[in-house]
Amino acid sequence: MMLEHADIRIDPARAADFETAILHGVRTVIAHARGFQGFKVNRSIESPGRYILTIYWDTLEDHTVGFRQSPAFGEWRAIVGPFFVQPPVVEHLELVGKSD
Amino acid sequence: MMLEHADIRIDPARAADFETAILHGVRTVIAHARGFQGFKVNRSIESPGRYILTIYWDTLEDHTVGFRQSPAFGEWRAIVGPFFVQPPVVEHLELVGKSD
Repeated sequence: MMLEHADIRIDPARAADFETAILHGVRTVIAHARGFQGFKVNRSIESPGRYILTIYWDTLEDHTVGFRQSPAFGEWRAIVGPFFVQPPVVEHLELVGKSD
Repeated sequence: MMLEHADIRIDPARAADFETAILHGVRTVIAHARGFQGFKVNRSIESPGRYILTIYWDTLEDHTVGFRQSPAFGEWRAIVGPFFVQPPVVEHLELVGKSD
């Protein structure tokens, strides 16, 4: 299991519409991708318009190949892309340790 | 409940020692702070030396006042601070939505 960690910036004036759109996009598009395990969307308290989208995937390739190279990626970006004021910064993370 | 999201950069050559230190620091210092609920440490796959520390707190003030203005903050920074190659970027996040 690994995480996709996407650092997203939008116009804070559009926050309510964006939050509706990103939840809709994850639940109706990404959640059907092979290897999808779950997700979280968090908003920054200090930086209005900054969001962290975390998606849990079985493997790195489930995201980078299976999802990104499928038609579903275009469907997803059509839903959320219009809100982005700069390209999201996306990296993949693996767990070092956590609380019990 | 809210999250502290710390984006940390270290020298990748010191990754093994840093990972031991940060787990030790969270478990022996931060975990005893009032309002601490849990933590995760993740390493970036694409950017060696980049780590995301997530700490779950009851309230924002448990971190920014209760922990940061206590002697425990100095103990924590003494353990992990020597590894930082730049100041960590710390923000607080609140949940918009997640999978069931």
